[in-house]
Amino acid sequence: MSIKIGVLGAGSWGTVLADLLVNNGHQVELWGNSQAIADEINTAHTNRHYLPEFEINPRVHASLDLNETLQDADAVLFVLPTAAIRSVAERMRPILATLPKQPLLISATKGLEIGTHKRISQIIADEFPEALAKRLVIFSGPSHAENVATHDLTSLTVASANLKDAEWVQSIFMNDYFRLYTNDDMVGVELGGALKNVIAIGAGILHGLGYGDNAKAALMTRGIAEISRLGVKMGANPLTFMGLSGIGDLIVTCTSVNSRNWRCGNALGQGQKLDDVLKNMGMVVEGVGTAEAAHELCQKLQVDTPISESIYRVLYEDADIHAEISKLMQRDGRNEMEFVN
Amino acid sequence: MSIKIGVLGAGSWGTVLADLLVNNGHQVELWGNSQAIADEINTAHTNRHYLPEFEINPRVHASLDLNETLQDADAVLFVLPTAAIRSVAERMRPILATLPKQPLLISATKGLEIGTHKRISQIIADEFPEALAKRLVIFSGPSHAENVATHDLTSLTVASANLKDAEWVQSIFMNDYFRLYTNDDMVGVELGGALKNVIAIGAGILHGLGYGDNAKAALMTRGIAEISRLGVKMGANPLTFMGLSGIGDLIVTCTSVNSRNWRCGNALGQGQKLDDVLKNMGMVVEGVGTAEAAHELCQKLQVDTPISESIYRVLYEDADIHAEISKLMQRDGRNEMEFVN
Repeated sequence: MSIKIGVLGAGSWGTVLADLLVNNGHQVELWGNSQAIADEINTAHTNRHYLPEFEINPRVHASLDLNETLQDADAVLFVLPTAAIRSVAERMRPILATLPKQPLLISATKGLEIGTHKRISQIIADEFPEALAKRLVIFSGPSHAENVATHDLTSLTVASANLKDAEWVQSIFMNDYFRLYTNDDMVGVELGGALKNVIAIGAGILHGLGYGDNAKAALMTRGIAEISRLGVKMGANPLTFMGLSGIGDLIVTCTSVNSRNWRCGNALGQGQKLDDVLKNMGMVVEGVGTAEAAHELCQKLQVDTPISESIYRVLYEDADIHAEISKLMQRDGRNEMEFVN
Repeated sequence: MSIKIGVLGAGSWGTVLADLLVNNGHQVELWGNSQAIADEINTAHTNRHYLPEFEINPRVHASLDLNETLQDADAVLFVLPTAAIRSVAERMRPILATLPKQPLLISATKGLEIGTHKRISQIIADEFPEALAKRLVIFSGPSHAENVATHDLTSLTVASANLKDAEWVQSIFMNDYFRLYTNDDMVGVELGGALKNVIAIGAGILHGLGYGDNAKAALMTRGIAEISRLGVKMGANPLTFMGLSGIGDLIVTCTSVNSRNWRCGNALGQGQKLDDVLKNMGMVVEGVGTAEAAHELCQKLQVDTPISESIYRVLYEDADIHAEISKLMQRDGRNEMEFVN
C-alpha cells in the first residue's frame, strides 16, 4: 500500500519522518515556512541546519504551499512546535473544507499549550470538525531524530481513541529500524511526552550536584509514579506510563546529555542561576514552562507530585536545591502503589 | 527505637547496610565466613577487598559465630549470594529453635536458585517454619552499594505479604540518604530483581554493536513489559514492575558500565564469544544463568518473552545477534498493553 502524506514541519524530526515514509514507499510532501530550507531539501537533499550529516531521500519533496501539501493527502502528520499547531490548524481548515477526501490527522508533537495547558489532542479538538479530530493518532516515545536518521533502532507508541486508526498508522510507518506499538490511551500517552521534561531537569540537577546512578534511577522511577498519579486523575491508564511514551521517553530524556532540559538542570545543579542558564543556552527549555503548567494542573486537581513541585520551586521561587532534596528524602514513608489510589 | 540486627554476608552490600543500620542507631552484628575480613572490620574498620575506599562505622561488629549473631536479634538480614541462602538457613534452623524470641527475616538478596528456579521467598518457605517464613520482608531496587557507601541518595522497595512488617523495616532503615517505599507484591518485587540481569546483557549487546539511546530505552521499556507479562502469569501486580524493584533497578543495571551483566553483553556485541567473555571476566555473570531459568519458566508457563528468548538463543544456541535483532524488530505490530492480558 502506498499513500500520500503531508508532513507539517521541516525541523529535524519532521525531515527524518518524511525520509522514513519515502523509504517505506509512500509519497511525501514536506511543508515548512522557510524557502531556503525547502530549496535545499529539493535540490541538495539535505537540511544541514537541523541535521548536518543527513542525506535525505531525493523523493522527499518540500513545499511552502499548504494547499498543495493537503491536496489528495491520505494523512497529515504534525511535527510542529506546540505553539504553532493552533495557527497552522487555522490555515488548514478552509483548505480542508474544499477537499472531497479528508486526511487522517497524526501528531508527533509533544507538549502542553502555554496558557491553556491543553494537550495536542485538545487543541486539535478545538480547531477541527469532530469527525476529523476524534480520529487523531498520536506518536510518542524515545525518539532522538538523529538516531532515526542513521537507521538506528527505534520503538514508539502510536495512540488513538480509535485503535483501528492507530493500527493503520503502525502499518504505514513500521520497517526494519522503526517499530510501533498501539495504545488507545490518548491522555496517558500525551501526558508522558509532555511532563517528562520536568523530570529531565531534575535528572540534570542531580548530575550537576554529583549524585550517582541510584539517585538518578530513583528520580526517574518516582518521577513516572507522580506523572501517573496525575494521569490517573485525568483518566489515563496507569500502565501506559510503563510504556514507550512514559518511562521509555523519560529514560531517553533523563540519560541524554544532549537534552536541553537535562543541560538546563545540570547547570542549575552546578550552581548557576536560571536566568543565566537560559540566556547562555539561547533556546527554549520546554521543561521550564511545563513545570509551571504541571504545578497549576496539580493544584487544580489536588494531585500530590512532590518531585515536580520541588523542581517548580527551584525554577520559580529560587528555592534552595539542597533543602528541596532533603525535604523529598525525609518525607514520611509511603507505599509504592499510591499513584493508583 | 533501637534494635539488634544480624546481617548475614560481609560483601559490599552487607557491609554498607550494616554501616547504615549502625548510623541509624541500631546494634549490628555482621556475620561472614572469612576470619581475615572479620578481623579487618573489627580492628581497621575497613573491608578493602569489597569497598576499597570505605570507612566503616567502628560500632559495626563482625563475627564468624552464627550463634552469637542470632542471639537476641530482632531481625536477620540476608545479604548472601542466592546460592548460599539454603545452606545458611540450614545452619540457622537449629539455633533459632533454641531461642525464645524469633527474629523477623529480611532479604536483600536478588536472584533465582539454580536448578529449582525458586525465588528467595520460596527458598525461605522451604527452610523455615511457616510463622517465620510468611513474614519475610524483601529489599529490592536500584542499589549500587558504592553509592550508599558515600551517602549518595538511594530509594528502594521493601515488600512483604504483611505490610505491617514492611513498614517496620521501612522505619528501621530510612534516613536522610536512604528512602524506602512499601509494597505487598512479593512475586513482582522478587521477579524484577532477578530478571533485570537478562535485559542488562541485552543493553550491553546493543552498546557493543554501537546502537544509540532510542534503542536502549526501547529495550528497557519492552524488557520490563515482558518481565511483567511473566509476572502477571505468576500472580504479580503489573504496576509493581513500574516501581523501584522493576524499572528502577532495570535502569541502573542497564545504564551502568560497572554491571557485570552489561559488560558481558557489551563484549558479546563487540563480537567476542561467550566462553571467552566469561573466562576473561573470571566471575559469575548472573544474567547468563537467569536467562536459562527464565527460558524454562516461560516455556512452562507459555509466556511470550521475545527479547529474553533472543538473548537466551545468543547465549545458549550461538544464534547470530544481528539476525535476532532483525527478527525482534520485524515481528508483527503489537498493542503496548498486551502484557496485562
